[in-house]
Amino acid sequence: MKLNERGLLVVISGPSGVGKGTIRKALFEIPDNNFIYSVSMTTRKPRAGEVEGVDYFFVSREEFELGIKNGEFLEYAEFVGEYYGTPLSYIDKQLQEGKEVIIEIEVQGALQVREKMPDAVFVFIVPPSKKALIDRLTARGTERSSEIQRRLEKAEREYNLAYKYDYIVVNDDVFNAADRIFAIIRAEHAKTERSIHKYYKLMEGKE
Amino acid sequence: MKLNERGLLVVISGPSGVGKGTIRKALFEIPDNNFIYSVSMTTRKPRAGEVEGVDYFFVSREEFELGIKNGEFLEYAEFVGEYYGTPLSYIDKQLQEGKEVIIEIEVQGALQVREKMPDAVFVFIVPPSKKALIDRLTARGTERSSEIQRRLEKAEREYNLAYKYDYIVVNDDVFNAADRIFAIIRAEHAKTERSIHKYYKLMEGKE
Repeated sequence: MKLNERGLLVVISGPSGVGKGTIRKALFEIPDNNFIYSVSMTTRKPRAGEVEGVDYFFVSREEFELGIKNGEFLEYAEFVGEYYGTPLSYIDKQLQEGKEVIIEIEVQGALQVREKMPDAVFVFIVPPSKKALIDRLTARGTERSSEIQRRLEKAEREYNLAYKYDYIVVNDDVFNAADRIFAIIRAEHAKTERSIHKYYKLMEGKE
Repeated sequence: MKLNERGLLVVISGPSGVGKGTIRKALFEIPDNNFIYSVSMTTRKPRAGEVEGVDYFFVSREEFELGIKNGEFLEYAEFVGEYYGTPLSYIDKQLQEGKEVIIEIEVQGALQVREKMPDAVFVFIVPPSKKALIDRLTARGTERSSEIQRRLEKAEREYNLAYKYDYIVVNDDVFNAADRIFAIIRAEHAKTERSIHKYYKLMEGKE
């Protein structure tokens, strides 16, 4: 029995190249989970096979800009002339239904989310060693060394922001890391500030 | 991989009759755990079959009182003319070895521990409903109704202290409750304040 019935917004972030996407996928493979991956809104046209409300919410430029004006995005960015953003109303609806909403975003985006949703759970994924991160960033193949250098500097800046997160999880093994995030979600629901309200209701015999 | 290598002191507490002892036992049945149950020190004589360092540390009254004087107890109490207490040095040694030290104590004792070990994890066990607690307290058998009334009043005072704990766990099912405490322990190790020091060491390439 879970005292806190509202879902959690779980932000998975960390330096580029750390394996956030793989961990997020492993998380969704945990049996009997009630996780929802946050669906983004975009102004770009759907590609073949993409489904409205599954891959993206597809909207016009005018609609998106109205959304920005009305503060309807948790975070958004413009990329190659198209907007991409996370609509707040969608997330709130899922949380109210008790779903755990998982967002996987870059460090800068995560810190923006922190300001709008202080209640969310912020998990910073880190490599098991500095060498492991360098190996991953340099192993992607054919880039020029200046590009690799730029990436390393970005990773350096990013991994110094760990202290802004609630939890630090090592990506030594992807299933181990996903499992620890699952434990974090279970523990967060039991936190006194999230559960005491329902507990007092139970004790008053009202539920 | 766990960034925080020091063990956690986990205090399991809650109103009398809530089933703390059963949950603690279920916790120790979790496979591959590294839990240690805190061994108390006492001045009473060993009973048949009791083993020094397993059931209790048996000491003389003089030794125990010297311990009190030197502040060597996490908490202690006198009961029917004999002392019982939790020695700090034993706990500290286990934590340093990376063991999770589990203590199961009454609410008043737990609040004393909080003052001495703010770093510990405090879990408050609650019944799934007020009725469940009343049923348990009154079902123990042959006590007079005045004794039952006294217990109910004690439970009422105790369960209003939930807000002083870090987590609230419902004892709806003993294995479910134990499993949630296990998740709490895993999550606590990943907390930024416990893990960032080791993380920065890793990033400096020192480990």
